[in-house]
Amino acid sequence: MNAMVPIQYLLRFIDEDSPFGDVTSDAVIPDCTCLAVIRAEQEGIIAGIQEASALFEYFGIVAEPGKKDGNAVIPNDIILSLKGPAKGILRVERTALNIIGRMSGIATQTRKLADRASAVNSRCRIAATRKTCPGFRALDKKAVQLGGGDPHRMGLSDGFLIKDNHLALVPIAEAVRSAKAASVYRKIETEVETPHDALTAAKEGAEIILLDNMTPQMIRETLFGLERAGLRNRVTIELSGGIDEITLSDYAALDVDIISMGALTHTVKNFSVTLEVLPGAG
Amino acid sequence: MNAMVPIQYLLRFIDEDSPFGDVTSDAVIPDCTCLAVIRAEQEGIIAGIQEASALFEYFGIVAEPGKKDGNAVIPNDIILSLKGPAKGILRVERTALNIIGRMSGIATQTRKLADRASAVNSRCRIAATRKTCPGFRALDKKAVQLGGGDPHRMGLSDGFLIKDNHLALVPIAEAVRSAKAASVYRKIETEVETPHDALTAAKEGAEIILLDNMTPQMIRETLFGLERAGLRNRVTIELSGGIDEITLSDYAALDVDIISMGALTHTVKNFSVTLEVLPGAG
Amino acid sequence: MNAMVPIQYLLRFIDEDSPFGDVTSDAVIPDCTCLAVIRAEQEGIIAGIQEASALFEYFGIVAEPGKKDGNAVIPNDIILSLKGPAKGILRVERTALNIIGRMSGIATQTRKLADRASAVNSRCRIAATRKTCPGFRALDKKAVQLGGGDPHRMGLSDGFLIKDNHLALVPIAEAVRSAKAASVYRKIETEVETPHDALTAAKEGAEIILLDNMTPQMIRETLFGLERAGLRNRVTIELSGGIDEITLSDYAALDVDIISMGALTHTVKNFSVTLEVLPGAG
Amino acid sequence: MNAMVPIQYLLRFIDEDSPFGDVTSDAVIPDCTCLAVIRAEQEGIIAGIQEASALFEYFGIVAEPGKKDGNAVIPNDIILSLKGPAKGILRVERTALNIIGRMSGIATQTRKLADRASAVNSRCRIAATRKTCPGFRALDKKAVQLGGGDPHRMGLSDGFLIKDNHLALVPIAEAVRSAKAASVYRKIETEVETPHDALTAAKEGAEIILLDNMTPQMIRETLFGLERAGLRNRVTIELSGGIDEITLSDYAALDVDIISMGALTHTVKNFSVTLEVLPGAG
Amino acid sequence: MNAMVPIQYLLRFIDEDSPFGDVTSDAVIPDCTCLAVIRAEQEGIIAGIQEASALFEYFGIVAEPGKKDGNAVIPNDIILSLKGPAKGILRVERTALNIIGRMSGIATQTRKLADRASAVNSRCRIAATRKTCPGFRALDKKAVQLGGGDPHRMGLSDGFLIKDNHLALVPIAEAVRSAKAASVYRKIETEVETPHDALTAAKEGAEIILLDNMTPQMIRETLFGLERAGLRNRVTIELSGGIDEITLSDYAALDVDIISMGALTHTVKNFSVTLEVLPGAG
Amino acid sequence: MNAMVPIQYLLRFIDEDSPFGDVTSDAVIPDCTCLAVIRAEQEGIIAGIQEASALFEYFGIVAEPGKKDGNAVIPNDIILSLKGPAKGILRVERTALNIIGRMSGIATQTRKLADRASAVNSRCRIAATRKTCPGFRALDKKAVQLGGGDPHRMGLSDGFLIKDNHLALVPIAEAVRSAKAASVYRKIETEVETPHDALTAAKEGAEIILLDNMTPQMIRETLFGLERAGLRNRVTIELSGGIDEITLSDYAALDVDIISMGALTHTVKNFSVTLEVLPGAG
Repeated sequence: MNAMVPIQYLLRFIDEDSPFGDVTSDAVIPDCTCLAVIRAEQEGIIAGIQEASALFEYFGIVAEPGKKDGNAVIPNDIILSLKGPAKGILRVERTALNIIGRMSGIATQTRKLADRASAVNSRCRIAATRKTCPGFRALDKKAVQLGGGDPHRMGLSDGFLIKDNHLALVPIAEAVRSAKAASVYRKIETEVETPHDALTAAKEGAEIILLDNMTPQMIRETLFGLERAGLRNRVTIELSGGIDEITLSDYAALDVDIISMGALTHTVKNFSVTLEVLPGAG
Repeated sequence: MNAMVPIQYLLRFIDEDSPFGDVTSDAVIPDCTCLAVIRAEQEGIIAGIQEASALFEYFGIVAEPGKKDGNAVIPNDIILSLKGPAKGILRVERTALNIIGRMSGIATQTRKLADRASAVNSRCRIAATRKTCPGFRALDKKAVQLGGGDPHRMGLSDGFLIKDNHLALVPIAEAVRSAKAASVYRKIETEVETPHDALTAAKEGAEIILLDNMTPQMIRETLFGLERAGLRNRVTIELSGGIDEITLSDYAALDVDIISMGALTHTVKNFSVTLEVLPGAG
Repeated sequence: MNAMVPIQYLLRFIDEDSPFGDVTSDAVIPDCTCLAVIRAEQEGIIAGIQEASALFEYFGIVAEPGKKDGNAVIPNDIILSLKGPAKGILRVERTALNIIGRMSGIATQTRKLADRASAVNSRCRIAATRKTCPGFRALDKKAVQLGGGDPHRMGLSDGFLIKDNHLALVPIAEAVRSAKAASVYRKIETEVETPHDALTAAKEGAEIILLDNMTPQMIRETLFGLERAGLRNRVTIELSGGIDEITLSDYAALDVDIISMGALTHTVKNFSVTLEVLPGAG
Repeated sequence: MNAMVPIQYLLRFIDEDSPFGDVTSDAVIPDCTCLAVIRAEQEGIIAGIQEASALFEYFGIVAEPGKKDGNAVIPNDIILSLKGPAKGILRVERTALNIIGRMSGIATQTRKLADRASAVNSRCRIAATRKTCPGFRALDKKAVQLGGGDPHRMGLSDGFLIKDNHLALVPIAEAVRSAKAASVYRKIETEVETPHDALTAAKEGAEIILLDNMTPQMIRETLFGLERAGLRNRVTIELSGGIDEITLSDYAALDVDIISMGALTHTVKNFSVTLEVLPGAG
Repeated sequence: MNAMVPIQYLLRFIDEDSPFGDVTSDAVIPDCTCLAVIRAEQEGIIAGIQEASALFEYFGIVAEPGKKDGNAVIPNDIILSLKGPAKGILRVERTALNIIGRMSGIATQTRKLADRASAVNSRCRIAATRKTCPGFRALDKKAVQLGGGDPHRMGLSDGFLIKDNHLALVPIAEAVRSAKAASVYRKIETEVETPHDALTAAKEGAEIILLDNMTPQMIRETLFGLERAGLRNRVTIELSGGIDEITLSDYAALDVDIISMGALTHTVKNFSVTLEVLPGAG
Repeated sequence: MNAMVPIQYLLRFIDEDSPFGDVTSDAVIPDCTCLAVIRAEQEGIIAGIQEASALFEYFGIVAEPGKKDGNAVIPNDIILSLKGPAKGILRVERTALNIIGRMSGIATQTRKLADRASAVNSRCRIAATRKTCPGFRALDKKAVQLGGGDPHRMGLSDGFLIKDNHLALVPIAEAVRSAKAASVYRKIETEVETPHDALTAAKEGAEIILLDNMTPQMIRETLFGLERAGLRNRVTIELSGGIDEITLSDYAALDVDIISMGALTHTVKNFSVTLEVLPGAG
């Protein structure tokens, strides 16, 4: 998971923040080196250290991690210790904090929900969706992994997922067969809204069945139908839609394999971190 | 506000989602045209229509807006009506919904808080910060504007904002003077933590004073000090830090000009929208 | 499969060929429109029409396809009829022919080998590898699909493939278990060199077993071992290494599912096409 | 020839192979360093070492060349010795091998044909054309040079080459004159199909005459005509079209200066190289 | 002002000059290291050292500055001493000299005019406009700063400047009010052509009034009107249009704050510098 | 010369001017269409119309040229008539004027000097150098062509030019021979400082001899030496260095072929053009 994104990907964020440099630092502070620390201001799972470090180092700053991505942290824990040109540190500051804040927010929430699900069903995992912030997909997905979640497919190019809008144009059995014919290397996932469609998809060879917006009763019925047809072990059952922090345990307690939640990445609570320049220490 | 970002900026999001195309649609649906609609699933302020339309049109789809950016919408309102190649519609779908979902979420919350502030102080505005999602800055800022907020500076290159970390390296009076000497074209904003520093900054000519994390009592004291020195009318007073939806009204009721809130863009609640393909209608 | 790559991807090829324009056409021909045709000069499966058309159209030229991607063609078949500014046609000419020539070469050879394999084993497919020309991966893979082959994984980000160099660092059973733990959405493929390792991988849940450089005798032994363990139906068997046009039939005749061949994309015989300007016809 | 392409050019190839990182290595191997070697598996001329080294070094790996670009190698020769993070080595592996495999394939074939031509006519050289793989032009051309061939013009922007499609729109004499008037800094090459046109082009001042698809008899006639007109020494004579490995010697034996062959870069036989991780050696 | 532009910005210039490398150095000089110096050939203010150094260092060359950006230099002063691969030095040479030549030309002229203005009015500054060379904006603006000028706004995104073409579409008072309503963070500048409009703009709260193409008499009248209305101290007065080196002193002597001159960046006299390889010193 | 640069190249200039859109127009003018014209404000040769038109059209504006690139214009001549969204026109305005202003400035001066040279020596041409503004090379070169000048080589990749700094590392005869051996497709130009070196270069086969900074007396001597050796007709003689507008005629009157002048593109006098919105005409 180390080098998921190249430095160029991260530099776009610096360019977005300062296309013509940092006019304030250029005008008001001297050319000096200084020390600084990034600290956690809350409890949770930290993420984005690797990316933040890469950015600081690109600008000639030594970045010493105090924690590793995926670690649990508490308030005041030092995430990164920095030493180098003050103007460089201040140029990267906000971008680094934005990356850590969003990624750690996602990792923290993922860990919480993953723990909640596995508490009632040790086999049940939490997965992300493609409802990520455009331009930040790779890091949203990485944060989910650091929180113990499954990243799901990265995008439209790397997994077959037959959804309602496909099924408005082609029957489910034909869709699964077409996907099978296209490549043996990708699993075939099919979104279904009825127990009957779930059975059809499984019979045709879909490897993952996504039960979309089903009630617990319908989910049980679907599982029973698959069991009866001897197909339950052949498929992974994913739930999605209408499941929130409160109802998660109830759904996880059903005999399902994975629950995907758009909110993991589309409704993110920022994790609070701060960068403090240590005066007189340069 | 029309053409804030060029199409290349938006196409990066498509490329992120489908570097090798949409393998599912390519495999399972025919080459056909269809109709589709994007609908609101909740109440709020809609945003991102212009960006979504530009993307659909780039892929040869006719996109007819049912609402304009900044409009209030209710559940089931049609945001966009689409007509064109089904594969194109499905390729853009998730990216378009992610853009609309995030931007409308920001616009909706901004409008709510802006209304709350102006209810108690007609002069008091709400502003965003630079705590945006990296890679999405331009659209986060545009969404704030559509919700009636002030976008604040876009980044490090377009405004002087002297912050605590600068002041760890240089005295406040000197910092303001240096900024004044660098350019007459940008306002000078200074973050302060004490009434005394506020007064110093104002005397040196700072045009905006950001009272950071001050208690209401300290804010009043600061305003009184400026008033007494005949400088209150010379400066814009911004509050930031520790203000949430609940306490906003209390702070706005103080005689301040603007309240900036990082949460507007760093902790976004997704606005729910859906795209529905209309079968048989192609 | 329509819109696999965006126009920007294709425009890089134009930029590579003419960073400062086409100095010859600019100097020697008038600003006029003309007609032109692209013709096949050999028999085979045509590919790249969509990409060539997109490029010509970007330069304001009307491009009328005479064939569809994946069609069989014979010498003199018209692939594309063009009408527009002569300078535009000549600027795109070589890039378009290079795209069609390489893609059709790949599609033609893939179709030939796919037919040869299925002639002896109707279930046996042909797949590409990642041994593509750098910078042309998406189109190499698309050409394989147009020729009836399986594109295999697109790259390192979209499929688990545990290879010899991984197994030099970690035992096979542990590797498969780690991959399973990372995500349920991707199939797990494991390269093995012995029947024993094939059995281990299958037991741990690998979905695809790549028998690397095995002799027919070892392949049979491996299949027998899987059969005996009741795992043959649980896995897809891929062969790779040391199989060429001549020996392909022998290998395909074994009870295997797919044969991947690097040569499909790393040793490509160009398909011959030509562009002819029709004088006096503009 | 050292730094023909910048690292950004090469990084696009990594990005193409792993837009979201290497999911297998991230999941299954530990964060460790290791040793590895890239070895030749056949005889030939090696190329691409410089590019492969630059990529490995970008990912923090020490790359020690065992050979230099352009050297002759035999099976088992070590091309590069590598030391560094295992995940980095595996991320770059396939891209590096693809670069070396294609470039060495081109260099090897170019050397063979160049030797064959010079054996019968010491003055006769071999040249590439613009029939390169899109996206890989610079390296295809460099490989030809390493094999002892002439790269010919790099693209449409850096040389006048008046071809049949120009001549469909403008008479040959006028075309040469127009090119001469445009710039004195580029040689003017003209493709001709008859001895008469060759003479016209030479009289007008074309410096290179490309005899396209001529029979040996026509070539001799053309050379004789130029000789008689006292122009033979004024022009470089290039042959192209319909010349293959078998007939090359016959054509080279004619009194010509250079033979360009599209097959050098459009129909490439991959040069076989392998990367082997040395276990326990990290 | 250190790191105004990232290295990628500068590398585009190298790529523009050598998309396929430096064919001459590759062909004619050996792989060796050498020493070289860049010297001033005239008197003036030097600029671009930081950018040139970054480029040389990117290519593995040690670059030792002999002067700092913004220093005064005389003929023969050493600007940069270089040590490293000769091919690298020659590849960067022209780009580095073009950067230094243009930036120093701008800085030198800016310093001259800034001195001339302040000699007659110590408060009067010189500013640049947006009339920069496309693709070089950031460095044109930085050069103005190094020469002691005010860079003015960087572009359309970072400052309100209401110009004649806006006022053809909306009345001045309304325009100023709209700008005020859009954001409190940017100063509002208004271009005016009459004393009356200046007064209107100032009354509405414009912070900077740009007197466009006014005669000295009209300027005096405008200043008087503002004074009488008690608004003179509230606004910054900028002059632009029809002011050249000769008339600058006359305009500066009026009681104005800043004079912007397009010629600073649109009509640049190159500053002469040269790079000399020191033979035998490698 | 039509399509020298692709639209992406031009869009970078818009992005440089407005990374976050045009904040003024967005705030102060309504969403309306309008008419506008771009007019010449001086006499000269116009250039950049094609590029400006492409940009306006990209933003949905109809652009009707009143002149063609390379035409002579006088004050008040309409260069472009525009019709479309006012915000689009104003967003492109400054970039379009900067392009036209710089390119027309170059074309105008080139035409003047080319005429001056040919008045005394009908065979003598004027050429540009690589001393262009970084980021604008292609358009600087195109402007020279439009003014009747020779663009010279575009950069380091498209022509052999052996300069003093090469000759500090390798003897002249060897350098010419190495270049000849590298490719037959590019002319070989050699910079020389003495008549003797000119003779050596010509004997070795250099096709262009650049007499650098020679006095008229040395030039005559060089020409005489070449004449005597029967090589004068074999080479193109270029002068460069120390030639300005005043001395140009004297140098052109010598029997030379081309005079290259860095000032054509490094010291450009902007050509004055203006864009006027026609109110009430939308």
